[in-house]
Amino acid sequence: MTTHYDYDLIVLGGGSGGLAAAFRAAQHGQRVAMLEPGELGGTCVNVGCVPKKAMWLAADLSGRIGLAAAMGFDVPVRPSLDWKELVVHRQAYIANIHASYLKRLNENKVVRVPRRGRLVDAHTVECSDGVRISAAHILIATGAYPQRPEIPGAELGLVSDDFFNLCGAPERVAIVGGGYIAVELAGLLQALGSRVTLLVRGERLLERFDAELTAQLAENLRHQGVQIHFGYRLRELQRDGDAVVALGHDGPADAHFDAVFFATGRRGNSADLGLEALGVVIGDKGEVEVDTWQTTAVPSVHAVGDIAGKVGLTPVAIAAARKLMDRLFGGQPQAKMDYENVASVVFSHPALGAVGLSEEEACAKYSDVRVYRSNFRPMLQALADGTQRSLFKLVCVGEDERVVGVHLLGESADEILQGFALAVKMGVTKAQFDDTVAIHPTSAEEVVLMR
Amino acid sequence: MTTHYDYDLIVLGGGSGGLAAAFRAAQHGQRVAMLEPGELGGTCVNVGCVPKKAMWLAADLSGRIGLAAAMGFDVPVRPSLDWKELVVHRQAYIANIHASYLKRLNENKVVRVPRRGRLVDAHTVECSDGVRISAAHILIATGAYPQRPEIPGAELGLVSDDFFNLCGAPERVAIVGGGYIAVELAGLLQALGSRVTLLVRGERLLERFDAELTAQLAENLRHQGVQIHFGYRLRELQRDGDAVVALGHDGPADAHFDAVFFATGRRGNSADLGLEALGVVIGDKGEVEVDTWQTTAVPSVHAVGDIAGKVGLTPVAIAAARKLMDRLFGGQPQAKMDYENVASVVFSHPALGAVGLSEEEACAKYSDVRVYRSNFRPMLQALADGTQRSLFKLVCVGEDERVVGVHLLGESADEILQGFALAVKMGVTKAQFDDTVAIHPTSAEEVVLMR
Repeated sequence: MTTHYDYDLIVLGGGSGGLAAAFRAAQHGQRVAMLEPGELGGTCVNVGCVPKKAMWLAADLSGRIGLAAAMGFDVPVRPSLDWKELVVHRQAYIANIHASYLKRLNENKVVRVPRRGRLVDAHTVECSDGVRISAAHILIATGAYPQRPEIPGAELGLVSDDFFNLCGAPERVAIVGGGYIAVELAGLLQALGSRVTLLVRGERLLERFDAELTAQLAENLRHQGVQIHFGYRLRELQRDGDAVVALGHDGPADAHFDAVFFATGRRGNSADLGLEALGVVIGDKGEVEVDTWQTTAVPSVHAVGDIAGKVGLTPVAIAAARKLMDRLFGGQPQAKMDYENVASVVFSHPALGAVGLSEEEACAKYSDVRVYRSNFRPMLQALADGTQRSLFKLVCVGEDERVVGVHLLGESADEILQGFALAVKMGVTKAQFDDTVAIHPTSAEEVVLMR
Repeated sequence: MTTHYDYDLIVLGGGSGGLAAAFRAAQHGQRVAMLEPGELGGTCVNVGCVPKKAMWLAADLSGRIGLAAAMGFDVPVRPSLDWKELVVHRQAYIANIHASYLKRLNENKVVRVPRRGRLVDAHTVECSDGVRISAAHILIATGAYPQRPEIPGAELGLVSDDFFNLCGAPERVAIVGGGYIAVELAGLLQALGSRVTLLVRGERLLERFDAELTAQLAENLRHQGVQIHFGYRLRELQRDGDAVVALGHDGPADAHFDAVFFATGRRGNSADLGLEALGVVIGDKGEVEVDTWQTTAVPSVHAVGDIAGKVGLTPVAIAAARKLMDRLFGGQPQAKMDYENVASVVFSHPALGAVGLSEEEACAKYSDVRVYRSNFRPMLQALADGTQRSLFKLVCVGEDERVVGVHLLGESADEILQGFALAVKMGVTKAQFDDTVAIHPTSAEEVVLMR
């Protein structure tokens, strides 16, 4: 007996992962419904990668204008910015993405339901208007949201989502956190006119990245004027007139800020989806627990993206969604996302990119680790008497010096990394780096010139 | 009987190749003399890659300032430039390189002779002051120089060397040629204030690069305001007051220019070196003919770099010099430069980079060619309503779609290429590109996202 379902697939969430799944399932000839009450594109397009990169590009321009002034161009060292105009350009760019997603959903005959949904059984979703729809498979791709710490006055603080509602740079900004969102916000706001203080609970930035590079990044941020306090434990926020006062358990003197941002972690949007009742396991951070095939304890219920709590990167959500769809509907029973050697870039100032193991991770795993590094000032910085240095690092293991980690901090690191990530995935050795002729003069050539 | 020589190696020429050879030979414990009557660093450091890149960075800044103006920064769309100040910064950068080379020569105990030299036998060089020195091996690394065409009034034209003596942008500039120097000068001068006309003998730019990309580059140059005339054959230059008039055999109306640059090829500095008398073969373009081991018909006389007439790139000269020294002095009898899959970048606006075969070359060599391409507007251009598009292209052959060519035109192409060049050298397939997780949002991710 074959059960009849309304759809082959219901996708909860219209972010990058959900969209990639819907498109791929449709390409495999499946009938797909997507429930998304808000804007298409999820965190990445609306309050993440895309508007962040737009602001980063603006911050980068601001820095380059300063360098240009030093090299003989008749421009101010710190140019003023009509922030609202920048936001108009940014939002127009995002509106184009929304429009193109809508068009593609229509072209692929994906039914878009602008409602929230709740699972009532392993194959049925009740929409927020009471309508029930069923499908052979259900994909949870509802993403995550920024979390505030549980301290008095937490409501006085902002989160990364709020950054994108700003129409100007607050004068004095505190950012609580030391992860990539904290570091990115700090660099952006400092470059665009704020005086930024980073309040970091731990003793370093970006704990998942190579310690040597993150130390150099902290140095770079300080050069830009960012104050960094490590070992800072926030106790409370208080209002004082227009200002917000941050009170720490110890650490530096309490200070007044015009804005305090929490960049203290994210939590999966798994509440009220009816998941626990079905037997789907929810983790500590609200994430939906899935196996290596992206499937929950309920065989017809799957999850990808930030809600799946693995690697919280847009391209990972997309790749995992496609693999899952290929497995479920594309006749590729072995299709599975490979979480090894996923490259990522922090859009700090300058950018920090990494693929593979940090030096510390490699040393914990292998006995025979050899590290190569290049610390240099890129030509533009040198020409403009700039202080920003780049630090590139290769982590190699074994007799054949297999390259298990590539770590890049500096100008163009974001663009340089991709090709090297491909080579690392192929199992490249240091000798193969050495045999590659350099492209001169670039920063990228330093990666193949380390000796 | 062992012959006693004054040195193990005499290097004629203190450019990139000569320096690399001297350093490497010294590291192998050899006694080295270097004859260089001029500045250290040769074309690359003094009138090539380095000052060119400095000017390109300035031109790039000028373009970005225009984009910044469009995005809300209070800066002029076309900022004015104190060219002399830029030159001061550029030359200070170059002076630092000279100083560091001198220091390294001293550290390596290389004897520097500030004289020209002439071979009087297979092991002896007579310096221009009459002193004779001998060595087991002699390396010719004297480089090349820009050539003027043999037409009436050729002396009225400038060459690329002269570009670096400019203290401002000439108003009306003609550039004769369609190769990389012509294209680079055109982009630089147009961006820094000149009105540029490119006079190209052939029907396309950059004949050794993929035709589709060079067509897109011509389009980009035209968008920037560069006039391009293909099929133009220059007959004569004439003076008319302060202007220079270019007269063509046919083609567009004759025109007045404030400066005319010849970018019509380069010729090896092989004259007066005493080479022919020893039996060393000199080619049509003044190049010293060498075998795949960089050795001439005279076993003790070798050549690297532009004079060796193979691939005229600084990193190739350096790599070839090192391999040769490893073979002669390092106990590596099989060490040899591999000229396959050498990546190169043209610093046009935007930059154009390539490694491996163009589509045309692949089609001539293989029956089973498949091409992937991505034509897109980078985020910065889109945000600023810019018109510049990027065109990336992969050329694959065979059933396993081995990637034999990567071609990148657009923002950051210069920095993106290096890692992919490494992968191509490793024999990467298209499927391995597909399996590499993208880094979002970057231009580089487009290289792994082509379908």
